[in-house]
Amino acid sequence: MAITATQVKELRDRSGVGMMDCKISLEEAAGDIDKAFDILRKSGIAKAQKKAGRSAKDGNIISYIHPGSKLGVLLEINCETDFVSDTDEFKELCKNVAMHIAATNPIAVKREDVSKETLDKEKEIYLEQAKSSNKPENIIEKMVEGRINKYFKENVLLEQDFVKDPNQTIKDLVTNAVSKLGENIVISRFSRYQLGENK
Amino acid sequence: MAITATQVKELRDRSGVGMMDCKISLEEAAGDIDKAFDILRKSGIAKAQKKAGRSAKDGNIISYIHPGSKLGVLLEINCETDFVSDTDEFKELCKNVAMHIAATNPIAVKREDVSKETLDKEKEIYLEQAKSSNKPENIIEKMVEGRINKYFKENVLLEQDFVKDPNQTIKDLVTNAVSKLGENIVISRFSRYQLGENK
Repeated sequence: MAITATQVKELRDRSGVGMMDCKISLEEAAGDIDKAFDILRKSGIAKAQKKAGRSAKDGNIISYIHPGSKLGVLLEINCETDFVSDTDEFKELCKNVAMHIAATNPIAVKREDVSKETLDKEKEIYLEQAKSSNKPENIIEKMVEGRINKYFKENVLLEQDFVKDPNQTIKDLVTNAVSKLGENIVISRFSRYQLGENK
Repeated sequence: MAITATQVKELRDRSGVGMMDCKISLEEAAGDIDKAFDILRKSGIAKAQKKAGRSAKDGNIISYIHPGSKLGVLLEINCETDFVSDTDEFKELCKNVAMHIAATNPIAVKREDVSKETLDKEKEIYLEQAKSSNKPENIIEKMVEGRINKYFKENVLLEQDFVKDPNQTIKDLVTNAVSKLGENIVISRFSRYQLGENK
C-alpha cells in the first residue's frame, strides 16, 4: 500500500516522531492514521521509559496564581536541555501541571514522597474501618491495601487524573511529553499556598 | 504661620495620612514639607506598632518568576481586609518583597524562624574564628554575638536591606506600608526555587 507524504506529515505533526518511523507505522497500520498513531505511542512510551534514567538538569521554574491572588503554586519541572525547556510544548506542560496542582491540592509528587507519619495514620484509620466488617484477616489486609492505593490515586500528583482530561493521569501527561520532546522530564517539586492556611 | 491647602495636599499624597494630621505636622515643621513628613513618619510608625498585634487574615499570594524561568518565588503577605489587599500600594509591596527575595535568597522571614541547627553551626564557626584571636573570653563572646547579628542582618528577610533602596530594611518597608494603609501587615511565608538546587 502506498503511503502519501501528506499522511506522513500529518502523523509527524501529531506525534512529533521522525519521518521514517511515521512511514513505517503508517505502512503497518495500512494507512490508518489513528492506528498508526497508537503504534507510535506504544513505541514512543517504550522510548520514554528508556529516557527516564537520564539526568534532567535543565527545565523551568513556573508559577500559577489563581485569579484573586488567594491561591498560588510554584513548580519546578526538569528536562535535559534548554532547547526543550524553551519549547511551547514544554511550557504548556508546565502550565497545565501548575494549574492542576492549584485545583487538586496533592500532598506529594510521588507516593515515595509521602511521609511515613501521614501514611501510618491513614493505614490505621482504614484498618479500624476494615476490622469492623468482621471479615477474615487476609480479606482485611486486601481492603486496607485497596484503600491505600485509592488514597495515593487521589492525593499523589503523578497518580491523579489530570483535571483538564480525566482520561489521563499526570504521569501519562509527562510520559507523552517525554515521547514527543525526546528528553527525560521530571516533576521535581512544588509549593502550593492558600491564603491563611499557614496559621 | 499660614499653611496652604496645596502644602497639606502634597504631604497627604506623600504620607497617606489624614488632612488634619498633615496640617498639624506642617505647622509644627513651620511649613517645611520634608520635616513634616519625618514628624508624620515617626507618629505613623508609633501607630504601626500599635497595629502589629491585630490579626491579619486577608492578603495576597503572589509570585515572581525571574526572566528566563530558572528562578521563582512564591510569597504570602497578609493584611486585615481585602479592601487593603486590593490596593495598588499593597500589590506594590508584594511585588517588591517577592523580587527582593529572588535577588537575596534569605533563609527565613524573621530570626526566630532560623532553625537551631543552622544557628548552632554558624555559632560554632564564629567561636572557632574568635578563639584564634587569643582575646579574653568576654571579648570573644561579644565578637561571636556581633557576627551572629551580622548573619541575621544578611540572611533574614525582615532585617535585610531592601535591594531597590538600601536605606531601608524590609521591616521598614512593611512598617511604612502599615502606616500608609492603616492595617497590620505580616509577611507570613515564602518559597524560593532555583533550577536544579533540589538534587
